[in-house]
Amino acid sequence: MNEYRVIEIKESVFEDNNKDAAKLRKELKDEGTFLLNLMSSPGAGKTTTLVKTIAELKDQLNIAIMEADIDSDVDAATISNTGTKVIQLHTGGMCHLDADMTRQGIRALDAKHTDLVVLENVGNLVCPAEFDTGSTKNAMILSVPEGDDKPLKYPLMFQISDALVINKIDVLDYFDFDLEACISRVKKLNPNIKIFPVSAKTGEGIKEWANWLLEEVNKAKN
Amino acid sequence: MNEYRVIEIKESVFEDNNKDAAKLRKELKDEGTFLLNLMSSPGAGKTTTLVKTIAELKDQLNIAIMEADIDSDVDAATISNTGTKVIQLHTGGMCHLDADMTRQGIRALDAKHTDLVVLENVGNLVCPAEFDTGSTKNAMILSVPEGDDKPLKYPLMFQISDALVINKIDVLDYFDFDLEACISRVKKLNPNIKIFPVSAKTGEGIKEWANWLLEEVNKAKN
Repeated sequence: MNEYRVIEIKESVFEDNNKDAAKLRKELKDEGTFLLNLMSSPGAGKTTTLVKTIAELKDQLNIAIMEADIDSDVDAATISNTGTKVIQLHTGGMCHLDADMTRQGIRALDAKHTDLVVLENVGNLVCPAEFDTGSTKNAMILSVPEGDDKPLKYPLMFQISDALVINKIDVLDYFDFDLEACISRVKKLNPNIKIFPVSAKTGEGIKEWANWLLEEVNKAKN
Repeated sequence: MNEYRVIEIKESVFEDNNKDAAKLRKELKDEGTFLLNLMSSPGAGKTTTLVKTIAELKDQLNIAIMEADIDSDVDAATISNTGTKVIQLHTGGMCHLDADMTRQGIRALDAKHTDLVVLENVGNLVCPAEFDTGSTKNAMILSVPEGDDKPLKYPLMFQISDALVINKIDVLDYFDFDLEACISRVKKLNPNIKIFPVSAKTGEGIKEWANWLLEEVNKAKN
């Protein structure tokens, strides 16, 4: 297990988050760092997906992870077992991260010379969709047990995501989840979104998702 | 299918939500109505659990349901199929309900002479825990696929709940979910919480949960 820090991030004092997010995006671009903002409900499998994604990309990219949670350091401990640089951010009860909170994490992580930083946002399909973190791209995970009606109930999250990972497809037979209906609902909200059905548990589909991410990181460098 | 209304609720103007929640609790007590605030992550099975709970209690109690969501009327449509009085509340993007928003729903529902009103809160383990809705009791659902570490990450939700339904126990064999470890984490946060392992799909455990709710409704009347 790598050592890792747990830091308490402070509520932002900036009034204009969109402006601050654009500023952070430029800072990271100048440093050659791609920031992925990864969002989902609690328990959709963000950390497990990350562990598999790290295994797929660690020989091509210099990676670091920020784990945001209300409390605990469970996820940072899991990531540290992969040997990847990781920091645990405690949000002090806040349901999302904005750009300045994200910047506090990146500066504490000391992410210079890192190709890819992934922010694992607080598990929540509502608030994180409303705050630009300064990320280069946004991705979300929807897991099969949550149901295929989630795009109807939480449309904004699906609209602001560049990629959707549909996780836990290994249990499709045990749940009433219509993959085709789900994809068609998502595409109606966001025709350009990339969709990757995966099982982070078995590894199915992880390569396709990781390849997309690698391509995006490389595109952003040029 | 019963007919039902969809209403847009307005953000509250009250500064002191705790005071307003105490006021609503008294209003409901005077009207003989028990309000249950039911919370969970998206897709934990609130609506399916409610459908089974209604089947269990409809001969003993006069029941009405409020379905809160950012968008859609999927859940109100499901409940209306049971013949139960239901209203869909749209929160205008808000991630939780407070007491005044709850009151707007109850008044639009016209819940007088109703023994039990259930507010199905927005799917979210963070924000709803921070706002007293004026409910008589709070209950939450954690589903097996979400993982047994959720009490560590979202402690407040487990602390403010009077009852915890652990749903989807029919798929325990397909997930790494340690029921005993989960219960012990929850009890550490909230020693008095009542815990009901159930499968809303198969009906297992629903009777025990419904009996607890019936007893609480009867206790509150006296």
